[in-house]
Amino acid sequence: MKIYADNAATTKMSQAAIDTMLDCMNNIYGNPSSLYTIGQKAKERLEEAREDIAKLINAQPREIIFTSGGSEADNQAILSAAAVGKAKGRIKIVSTAIEHHAVLHTLKKLEKEGFEIVLLPVGSNGIVDVSDAEAAIDDNTCLVTVMTVNNEIGTIQPIKEIADICRSRNVTFHTDAVQAIGHMPIDVKELGVDMLSASAHKFHGPKGVGFLYVRKGVRLTNLIEGGAQERGKRAGTENVAGIAAMAEALSEAVDNIEYNKKHLTPIRDHLIKGLSEIPHSALNGDMDDRMCNNVNFSFEGIEGESLLILLDQKGISASSGSACTSGALDPSHVLLAIGRVHEVAHGSLRLSLGEDATLEEADYIINAVKEVVEYLRSFSPVWRDLVSGKKDFIL
Amino acid sequence: MKIYADNAATTKMSQAAIDTMLDCMNNIYGNPSSLYTIGQKAKERLEEAREDIAKLINAQPREIIFTSGGSEADNQAILSAAAVGKAKGRIKIVSTAIEHHAVLHTLKKLEKEGFEIVLLPVGSNGIVDVSDAEAAIDDNTCLVTVMTVNNEIGTIQPIKEIADICRSRNVTFHTDAVQAIGHMPIDVKELGVDMLSASAHKFHGPKGVGFLYVRKGVRLTNLIEGGAQERGKRAGTENVAGIAAMAEALSEAVDNIEYNKKHLTPIRDHLIKGLSEIPHSALNGDMDDRMCNNVNFSFEGIEGESLLILLDQKGISASSGSACTSGALDPSHVLLAIGRVHEVAHGSLRLSLGEDATLEEADYIINAVKEVVEYLRSFSPVWRDLVSGKKDFIL
Repeated sequence: MKIYADNAATTKMSQAAIDTMLDCMNNIYGNPSSLYTIGQKAKERLEEAREDIAKLINAQPREIIFTSGGSEADNQAILSAAAVGKAKGRIKIVSTAIEHHAVLHTLKKLEKEGFEIVLLPVGSNGIVDVSDAEAAIDDNTCLVTVMTVNNEIGTIQPIKEIADICRSRNVTFHTDAVQAIGHMPIDVKELGVDMLSASAHKFHGPKGVGFLYVRKGVRLTNLIEGGAQERGKRAGTENVAGIAAMAEALSEAVDNIEYNKKHLTPIRDHLIKGLSEIPHSALNGDMDDRMCNNVNFSFEGIEGESLLILLDQKGISASSGSACTSGALDPSHVLLAIGRVHEVAHGSLRLSLGEDATLEEADYIINAVKEVVEYLRSFSPVWRDLVSGKKDFIL
Repeated sequence: MKIYADNAATTKMSQAAIDTMLDCMNNIYGNPSSLYTIGQKAKERLEEAREDIAKLINAQPREIIFTSGGSEADNQAILSAAAVGKAKGRIKIVSTAIEHHAVLHTLKKLEKEGFEIVLLPVGSNGIVDVSDAEAAIDDNTCLVTVMTVNNEIGTIQPIKEIADICRSRNVTFHTDAVQAIGHMPIDVKELGVDMLSASAHKFHGPKGVGFLYVRKGVRLTNLIEGGAQERGKRAGTENVAGIAAMAEALSEAVDNIEYNKKHLTPIRDHLIKGLSEIPHSALNGDMDDRMCNNVNFSFEGIEGESLLILLDQKGISASSGSACTSGALDPSHVLLAIGRVHEVAHGSLRLSLGEDATLEEADYIINAVKEVVEYLRSFSPVWRDLVSGKKDFIL
């Protein structure tokens, strides 16, 4: 059995998105900035995509800026708000300890430039406390940035509540919605966010393309200077094929949100139930405010990397945390933030189901994980110490 | 007849590039940062593309950083050198008046931050004088950035000579080679450049992908922060399909350089000869140090925009300057830099031939341009003033 269970890392493109891409590559090759017919055709396709995407999140077309992906969108949003803030003498930014590195590393850069960065803690369930956000925001704050859904443990954050506070305090609010969009309903007006980042390859669109929603009236500075594309806010010849395919993929994804939720929730819960039977294991994240396709477990006494390699041999593609750091030896900052100690955080597994997942596959995964964990523990010195009582079990 | 003669704006993807893209979209969908087989396959494809591209420009694979295109590459290169320079107290940057806006606007941003920007003039032939560059470089200079080939008038700049001076003075040298790479031989070692920008869609690769060559030992700062992709220098899940297609397109393009030069030079010269017959017209740029596919003419007494629209009606796609500013009313900064006055610069036409151009097409273009220029002049008040002697002819 072959099971791709790492859809939070990236997804396979949908057939419709591939077809759109192919159509553009073959037929819509003009430069959208060109005056002649072939260029204007490309421009039309680009603007159609912008309208489609805007409609899908209840925005205006001019509020959508196309980027090369979620990381670029996060960088531009945060640096923009910081520049605007600095000009007003407001240099505090509030975020959380469980953001994606595209956010955290941008904040780190700003900290070196003199900004005050406050990273809110999260509870053991991986959810930020709205009152913590409220308490952290002061007159010096220029930006609050909180992700909509965490990429590792799938927890859904109280975005609307935090956005409401920001609005009442006149503070810009940005959300990295890379893991949310196309997977849960997103209405930017209802959420009340000022800026929102998205990445196409997380919802069966192509890699290398994404967008930033910027509410009308919110000032945006440029990350990439040059031509007058994207209303002068993002230079570079537009990736028309990728953008059209992104619109196609998002449209499909949004259409399927309800069905997928109904279909995947019982499979996710079956997985959680099955994996919970493994002794000295624990679910990471929240049981209720959780994406319907996310399962994240820690198993005491094992190494996540070996777990992934052996699961791969059984045909299961999964990860230990975010793909961006899979190669790294550091334990997940998200798992540390929810209170897992280093040793436990290291022995973690993230499964992010595809829409075509089945209960049969879930059973296959449960059995495979059980086998592999047992096998790895059989020669783990840490496990030996735990069983012999030399060390105390944590989970 | 349908003639796409705006290949400097963008090119149609080659069939091989489309096929590569399709293969990746269908089969290589993993995240290259993932540990399991599907991810590692994507990683292999990515590194193959890096090796292929490096070989094609005589670089080492680790000297290639993938970006979302030429503009991003230009921005990152310039901002990096500026940051390194500032740390050493060197805040002067030398460039030319005819660079692409991705360079000029980035320099404008740095000027606002306190950098001293010197834009070298060019001769009436559109070529920068090496001795001007030499004279401008001083102990305060951290970067010299000069494009390899101009995007509007196709002039080839004395990159090797300027790079030599920079090396001897210990100043970083960057070149925007977006219009050159795949169209003329580029050997980064022989040229002696420290950084070089490229964009796939200018050589029949996809839009939305490019690369920056960074010589080993040259420090690069990040433009986009986040994951550890591209040796920690450019965050964001890699656009594997786009990158593989770029490598495929570049390989084909480099293979065809010699043939295309032989094939296109006589067609270009035929066009130049034919268009020169139009009274009060002039070729822009140099006759010798010129790309084999570039023709750029000014015609007195007409508006470039109308010219383009009427040529489009005759099936010819051409531009007045760079595509990025086609929509703008400002005359080309490049044509102004070679000494054309506003009125003349406005009535300009750039033809950038595709590799499949024919002499028959050239004849069709010559006749079409003659007809359209004559027609536009027939009701141009400016032309009437010129003919009646109220104003003096410039060309």
